[in-house]
Amino acid sequence: MAQAAQMAQTAQATIGDSEFDRDTAVTLREEGVYDAELSAGWTIIHAVNGGYLLAMLGRALGQSLPHSDPFSVSAHYLTASVPGPAVIRTQVVRTGRTLSTGQASLFQYAEDGTETERIRVLATYGDLEALTDDIRTSAQPPAIPPLEQCLGAGDGPAPIPGSSAITGRLSVKLDPATVGWAIGAPSGKGEMRGWFGLADGRDADPLSLLLTVDAMPPTSFELGLKGWTPTIELTTHIRCRPAPGPLRVSITTRNLAGGFLEEDADVWDSADRLVAQSRQLARAPRG
Amino acid sequence: MAQAAQMAQTAQATIGDSEFDRDTAVTLREEGVYDAELSAGWTIIHAVNGGYLLAMLGRALGQSLPHSDPFSVSAHYLTASVPGPAVIRTQVVRTGRTLSTGQASLFQYAEDGTETERIRVLATYGDLEALTDDIRTSAQPPAIPPLEQCLGAGDGPAPIPGSSAITGRLSVKLDPATVGWAIGAPSGKGEMRGWFGLADGRDADPLSLLLTVDAMPPTSFELGLKGWTPTIELTTHIRCRPAPGPLRVSITTRNLAGGFLEEDADVWDSADRLVAQSRQLARAPRG
Repeated sequence: MAQAAQMAQTAQATIGDSEFDRDTAVTLREEGVYDAELSAGWTIIHAVNGGYLLAMLGRALGQSLPHSDPFSVSAHYLTASVPGPAVIRTQVVRTGRTLSTGQASLFQYAEDGTETERIRVLATYGDLEALTDDIRTSAQPPAIPPLEQCLGAGDGPAPIPGSSAITGRLSVKLDPATVGWAIGAPSGKGEMRGWFGLADGRDADPLSLLLTVDAMPPTSFELGLKGWTPTIELTTHIRCRPAPGPLRVSITTRNLAGGFLEEDADVWDSADRLVAQSRQLARAPRG
Repeated sequence: MAQAAQMAQTAQATIGDSEFDRDTAVTLREEGVYDAELSAGWTIIHAVNGGYLLAMLGRALGQSLPHSDPFSVSAHYLTASVPGPAVIRTQVVRTGRTLSTGQASLFQYAEDGTETERIRVLATYGDLEALTDDIRTSAQPPAIPPLEQCLGAGDGPAPIPGSSAITGRLSVKLDPATVGWAIGAPSGKGEMRGWFGLADGRDADPLSLLLTVDAMPPTSFELGLKGWTPTIELTTHIRCRPAPGPLRVSITTRNLAGGFLEEDADVWDSADRLVAQSRQLARAPRG
């Protein structure tokens, strides 16, 4: 880890001053309405990553609601986003003492200027700092080999065929037990596990966790399916403010049926806390 | 099962003609707007069950969208509902060939006639009949003893203290391994399992599954906590049209932390198909 420590000393980005923060920035246009620019840096082939979009919506909601931390964010993906300008329209649904609920939609523009809705989100926000210290979790962190034994985009065949800008923004190191798909030998199990960080060294916060839950290769690859696994709906619970350091992510699919599958993501921080839990419903690839 | 068969012959309600159907009925007032009456028959103490409310919203959305079956329904619970009149306002968000997305809110009236929003839902609907027969699930039905060895409301101490009308509408028989809480000896595990049916014998359909995922005693009881476990957010995936016959429901909590917990429900039909998966974020009782 000497190398990592050295990197940290020389070039580590910080929360608020990083690629992720710049690329998820939103600018207040008028009350509840934010302008944004979807960066081409977070694309997989030509599609903008759904977790990146979710983080941007989460940022807008955190600015428009009286509470700043996402507790539960439910997103329904409507149409495919493309790099370029976007507008986010938010609505305060309910304001409470400890929790508040809001809604947000991200739109992009057609050539004639009409807006097309990309994603709609319902979310409940609170204050993670205000949570009690009472922890009775029975969940255990996943067994993942040490980071230096795991495999990243530069360690072999390109994990995702084609040009995927997002691989340059992330530091994903997969458990070798879940990379069979990259060499044509998928395990057949609906499991994907690995270490997750941002390439510029920025530590995780609740907003970046919204990216993390949807930034690993899909479990469908290990189920032997190739191609796009478009998200229909993704709900994320942020359960704890993450400690600094790399995250561990475990994604599991139990039920691939009728052309659809669920993906359950658990995200663990360096202090062994379960910091995020998500579940998505996605269309299975036809391959 | 001879007794059950006899009951079925004499007094079985049917889908469309049952307590559940009558009590979740909605009446079109104008385009997208439905009047409803929250029945006191589905209350726990004084609170209207969240799954019952969800089924009512699901029915309104099924009538307003071009697709009739809920695939993914995300509900954020805002304020506590009470028996009495309500209005459901729906919006068509996107219409696609195989899926459509809608939004719905349930409101009740204050004495001065102003509306208070109780629940807001985002949902994606489709056609369960159109799904492929390709099933590669690795999920296994939970090990639950035969129905006649499981315990219902009439088999011992009242499972839920106080007057709970909903127990008369349901036929819930819990795995004896998960009823320790009813005799003051909770297991300490975040697990609740059992058989589920409607008391009048109506078989399950996608709408009643929206009730089922939130109609069991909370896992917090087996974690040794007493009192109310209010739902903040509940997302349900309906994965298959259920076969006739009793359902098996398994609810699991892994992460009780900071005053909140998640509850994951799996619902299995008599053909051993995983017909529904849900996850909710709830406030932990203080007890």
